[in-house]
Amino acid sequence: MLKPVCLADFEEHFLKSLDRNARDYFSSGANQEITVKDNVEAFNRYRLRPRMLRDVSNVNMKTTIMGNEIDFPIGIAPTAVQKMAHPEGEVATARAASSMNTCMILSTWSTTSIEEVAQANGSGLRWFQLYVFKDKSVTMDLIKQAERSGYKAIVITVDTPRVGKKLVDDRNRFYLPSHLHRVNATTDTSDNTQSSQEAQESLVHKSTQTMLDPKLTWDTITWVKSFTKLPVIVKGILTGEDAKLAVQHGVDGIIVSNHGGRQLDGVLATIDVLGEVVEAVEGRVEVYVDGGVRQGTDVLKALALGAKAVFIGRPVLWGLAYQGQTGVEEVLRIIKEEFKLAMALSGCANVTDIQLSLLAFEKRYSSKL
Amino acid sequence: MLKPVCLADFEEHFLKSLDRNARDYFSSGANQEITVKDNVEAFNRYRLRPRMLRDVSNVNMKTTIMGNEIDFPIGIAPTAVQKMAHPEGEVATARAASSMNTCMILSTWSTTSIEEVAQANGSGLRWFQLYVFKDKSVTMDLIKQAERSGYKAIVITVDTPRVGKKLVDDRNRFYLPSHLHRVNATTDTSDNTQSSQEAQESLVHKSTQTMLDPKLTWDTITWVKSFTKLPVIVKGILTGEDAKLAVQHGVDGIIVSNHGGRQLDGVLATIDVLGEVVEAVEGRVEVYVDGGVRQGTDVLKALALGAKAVFIGRPVLWGLAYQGQTGVEEVLRIIKEEFKLAMALSGCANVTDIQLSLLAFEKRYSSKL
Amino acid sequence: MLKPVCLADFEEHFLKSLDRNARDYFSSGANQEITVKDNVEAFNRYRLRPRMLRDVSNVNMKTTIMGNEIDFPIGIAPTAVQKMAHPEGEVATARAASSMNTCMILSTWSTTSIEEVAQANGSGLRWFQLYVFKDKSVTMDLIKQAERSGYKAIVITVDTPRVGKKLVDDRNRFYLPSHLHRVNATTDTSDNTQSSQEAQESLVHKSTQTMLDPKLTWDTITWVKSFTKLPVIVKGILTGEDAKLAVQHGVDGIIVSNHGGRQLDGVLATIDVLGEVVEAVEGRVEVYVDGGVRQGTDVLKALALGAKAVFIGRPVLWGLAYQGQTGVEEVLRIIKEEFKLAMALSGCANVTDIQLSLLAFEKRYSSKL
Amino acid sequence: MLKPVCLADFEEHFLKSLDRNARDYFSSGANQEITVKDNVEAFNRYRLRPRMLRDVSNVNMKTTIMGNEIDFPIGIAPTAVQKMAHPEGEVATARAASSMNTCMILSTWSTTSIEEVAQANGSGLRWFQLYVFKDKSVTMDLIKQAERSGYKAIVITVDTPRVGKKLVDDRNRFYLPSHLHRVNATTDTSDNTQSSQEAQESLVHKSTQTMLDPKLTWDTITWVKSFTKLPVIVKGILTGEDAKLAVQHGVDGIIVSNHGGRQLDGVLATIDVLGEVVEAVEGRVEVYVDGGVRQGTDVLKALALGAKAVFIGRPVLWGLAYQGQTGVEEVLRIIKEEFKLAMALSGCANVTDIQLSLLAFEKRYSSKL
Repeated sequence: MLKPVCLADFEEHFLKSLDRNARDYFSSGANQEITVKDNVEAFNRYRLRPRMLRDVSNVNMKTTIMGNEIDFPIGIAPTAVQKMAHPEGEVATARAASSMNTCMILSTWSTTSIEEVAQANGSGLRWFQLYVFKDKSVTMDLIKQAERSGYKAIVITVDTPRVGKKLVDDRNRFYLPSHLHRVNATTDTSDNTQSSQEAQESLVHKSTQTMLDPKLTWDTITWVKSFTKLPVIVKGILTGEDAKLAVQHGVDGIIVSNHGGRQLDGVLATIDVLGEVVEAVEGRVEVYVDGGVRQGTDVLKALALGAKAVFIGRPVLWGLAYQGQTGVEEVLRIIKEEFKLAMALSGCANVTDIQLSLLAFEKRYSSKL
Repeated sequence: MLKPVCLADFEEHFLKSLDRNARDYFSSGANQEITVKDNVEAFNRYRLRPRMLRDVSNVNMKTTIMGNEIDFPIGIAPTAVQKMAHPEGEVATARAASSMNTCMILSTWSTTSIEEVAQANGSGLRWFQLYVFKDKSVTMDLIKQAERSGYKAIVITVDTPRVGKKLVDDRNRFYLPSHLHRVNATTDTSDNTQSSQEAQESLVHKSTQTMLDPKLTWDTITWVKSFTKLPVIVKGILTGEDAKLAVQHGVDGIIVSNHGGRQLDGVLATIDVLGEVVEAVEGRVEVYVDGGVRQGTDVLKALALGAKAVFIGRPVLWGLAYQGQTGVEEVLRIIKEEFKLAMALSGCANVTDIQLSLLAFEKRYSSKL
Repeated sequence: MLKPVCLADFEEHFLKSLDRNARDYFSSGANQEITVKDNVEAFNRYRLRPRMLRDVSNVNMKTTIMGNEIDFPIGIAPTAVQKMAHPEGEVATARAASSMNTCMILSTWSTTSIEEVAQANGSGLRWFQLYVFKDKSVTMDLIKQAERSGYKAIVITVDTPRVGKKLVDDRNRFYLPSHLHRVNATTDTSDNTQSSQEAQESLVHKSTQTMLDPKLTWDTITWVKSFTKLPVIVKGILTGEDAKLAVQHGVDGIIVSNHGGRQLDGVLATIDVLGEVVEAVEGRVEVYVDGGVRQGTDVLKALALGAKAVFIGRPVLWGLAYQGQTGVEEVLRIIKEEFKLAMALSGCANVTDIQLSLLAFEKRYSSKL
Repeated sequence: MLKPVCLADFEEHFLKSLDRNARDYFSSGANQEITVKDNVEAFNRYRLRPRMLRDVSNVNMKTTIMGNEIDFPIGIAPTAVQKMAHPEGEVATARAASSMNTCMILSTWSTTSIEEVAQANGSGLRWFQLYVFKDKSVTMDLIKQAERSGYKAIVITVDTPRVGKKLVDDRNRFYLPSHLHRVNATTDTSDNTQSSQEAQESLVHKSTQTMLDPKLTWDTITWVKSFTKLPVIVKGILTGEDAKLAVQHGVDGIIVSNHGGRQLDGVLATIDVLGEVVEAVEGRVEVYVDGGVRQGTDVLKALALGAKAVFIGRPVLWGLAYQGQTGVEEVLRIIKEEFKLAMALSGCANVTDIQLSLLAFEKRYSSKL
């Protein structure tokens, strides 16, 4: 078997080894998949202006996020139903994150319980991604579980008042294999099987829609903050306007994200939004980004634009599909080494050396505000 | 048979089921088809800046056009000879429009009479698209028929002083099947058959050319307004200059349209013109747009740029070809649901929430005025 | 045989019917053929802003160039060795130009004599394209022949102090078929046969190089003007700076041309240069353009940018290859009709109605002056 | 065998004749190879504005670099292990450079000794490219060898504190054929064989990494200058900021280079950086450029942007692979003749006539400084 040398190599392995239902679910984006592609391609519109003849004999990638140190500024984004990628699912991911000393964000839609993931993650840094349920007690219970199990932040996804439209999932009538369950989805009404020809829709998506609260507002954020002491991070902010509102509502961090291009097709690539968000928050909260990060230079570019760290989603699933925990570690190791090399070759010995002047870019899209 | 999940799916069905003469006629654009393609692609130069954490539990798509309420701001553009797409033609379209509670614009070149369409449309909202004939009495008669049959506006096409050049129609020597007739074309000299090799041109187009008035001017608009109480809308405006003239000449509405790219190849995509026209009219008349609308986000973008509603042409023909009335309803239902989802995912509970700030865009073409 | 409906159709016919040596010679551009392709593609960066509701029942394409009326502003650019495209060569072209009442520019490298072409052209408008020879008496003699034979202007090509490098001609070792001769090339040392493997170059190009004067300067223009009363037009100007110099040196007209992309690869497309030249001359001399004109809308765009007329080169050769005189007439007829339609559909009844405001464009390349 | 007529032809020959290990090593760029491709493509974003009617009967390409005259401003960039391209390797290159009277830069990683190359180069102009070793005595010894052997400048590569990541080399586990040695790499620990499956990396690259000094700083430049009287040129500068620092640290020249896209993928194309560097140095030192130069017009563009000369790397290897010394001479002859033609066709009789006004360009990437 060919040993992968870059993250794109894992995608090939991943595509080969999973069945169509799973493969399409993980790969797809909303509608025409403009944004899912642009998330990756947009990084090419940012070019590097490396500095020479600085001492980079010791490149230090360490940073802190929400006050916790990690070895390198690349965390694991929350992705659903990881057991569909590998039997060990979230447990494998949690172990890999811990062994590499970076942060893992666990999805509400995990196929492993909050506590079991915590045990696998041990002393590692873990955050919990929260979907807000119609049933407030379910939401509160999830947060309490996360607190008890040592998760260090609540990451509220704010871009899913409704589930995005993915054509392939509609065509496949996406289903969960019968042995898998979304363990936190206590009121899941999908029967884990492919819906009949007549149904013509994904029962999983339908059930998701039914469970989640479409009335999500800034008051929801205030409500969550009122009964947890954990830092609250909002994931899915895509404008400077919302970033300012987030700061005003006391959030502790922002993840610039378009849900991997899976929600609203045609939104800007996250790297194209990052600068605007960073500018809007004026350093008052930490800003992170996910979407399309595939190489060490992508991380460098995101940090140059002001991100404190990036998160990767699909590549972790590719790593899982490849070799479980070892696969995820390999994915992290490769991009970590690429990032280290990119720092060295651009004259940055520490992450604080990574500045906006490192970039030249094509600003393709402008708004009229 | 694969159930279509997006409008592009219908195009495939459509392309398969019709013969070349019809298929090419409906699909083609003028000359090199630059504009017909750009109408669709230009939407990708407009990217979304969605807002989060607004209450979108109730998304209301209702709006009014010319004072009449419709359930969602997506109407049916006028297209010719719909029986060539399905035996029930305009009757099927009229029923679908009515059952979905949106507006249908009937073409002068319909294969069903003005009155018959009105009956099929019932209490639905219908407008009549008018070609101005050399013979003034024909024109006046058409308007009177429309008034009598409950059409609520006259939509004058202003971009066709001559018929555009479509290479495929020239190559196919486009003809109407012998059982079909343009019922309003009382002086039609085409014999509904494919012209001989020697003729080397479409007799339908030639006849059209002969019947229509090439002397169409703003005075024609004044003349039409002088003998009808119906609102008069001009369809085919592509500059701010003409939009201002339209307002000065008392028109009630403007449809920004390039005739689906079928008249003058190389004109700007309609979405690229919309903003300029909206700015020019300064809210004095309603502005609509057609051309290249294929997805819910396209509608969102058009409304963000100031359109009161959009109209779709070819997708309706694809729906007809697919399953007649049911097919058209399915087309409307899919794009309506996509639009609703796009509103929810961009934080818009009502169409009035859809603002210019929702967009970031690449302004590719500028004029030197 | 398929009847061509647009100029691109002729290119297919042309490509099929000629042998590789001739086909490549006519089609090719210099080096990587960036400019030869961009000449055509650049027109797509100019989009139309058509005006509606103007009386276009009578579209008048007539104009004058250098004081002579032509039926439409599309002339025939000078191209070499036309008998290689059709046995009747320049005679066929001259008859077609005359019958269509437009201007033909005869190339110095014609395979028919100046006088014979004049006879075929009859009362038509003809100009003579002049290459300046090292041997001044040859140059003077050519001008005198042109004067005697009723040519109405001398068009001096100024972009060929050396012959451009065409890779395919180098690979083919381009040769003239043995029965053809450049009749004005009195000192031609090429033997009209394909050079041997060892020679590895085109003897035709080598001979051309030897005959032409590489010391061509503005003084040459002054010298030519000193002994002819005919208007002197310079062909090959590509900057505003040179356009101003041309006016200062008393030229009567300028053809913006990059020699069909055959001389210096990487120069701007002519349509991208036209505006700059028009601005520089401030109406003091007439400006024409050739290069990449393939459709009626291309002509419209060129006139909107300020050209008095356009000239077409390769399409005429395609017409020749297709059917000799009839083929050239058909080429001219098609683009003339397309131009007429484009005028009508953009609201222009006369060529003077064609203004810069008709265009929106992408200005891709800028200079730092 | 087809005789090559342009440099791209040599690439084909080269690709065919070498084995995969060598071919990939020479061709590849870092990671996704964005920059290696952009180096070439970026030249197309620079278009020419040629001037006409200047006397170009005598085109003089001579120039000086660091005070030494060369026949044309195209030198040979340093490339490693040239014997892998042809048995005579650097000796063949040195003879070709000398016979064509241009400058050759010898790589530290040559497979021929500094002295042997000097002998082959004879009275030719040669510079020595220096990698700074951890072991300072090795570095000093190399400089002394170069001085003794008549090299006229020391070119310090500053962009390689670590070796870039080339995916193909990782996949191939790049190795040197056992009969070849990097003669200056006295502490080379690679065993010249393909590493085992387990090793999964290039031992050559690993050894390189071990030998080179990652602490390279501006102090290193000062240190080198302190014990050599030769001019010191820094190769690998990619920002105006570093160019200013270079001048402040007393360097004598700058080569704008991104190491042929082999170090940090995603850096700007060198032609896109050149103008910024030229502006920053304000004429205080000579500026050269390498990367993507494949045609005469590329040289013209680089000089128009302010380069004193360009250097070509890969095309020389292609020439070697093709026919050793003769092949390199042919490569140089072709691009020299193309450059001469480009000068003539743009109105430049001397290299000093090549000015910025010769260009129109698309400035795609901007920095926020």
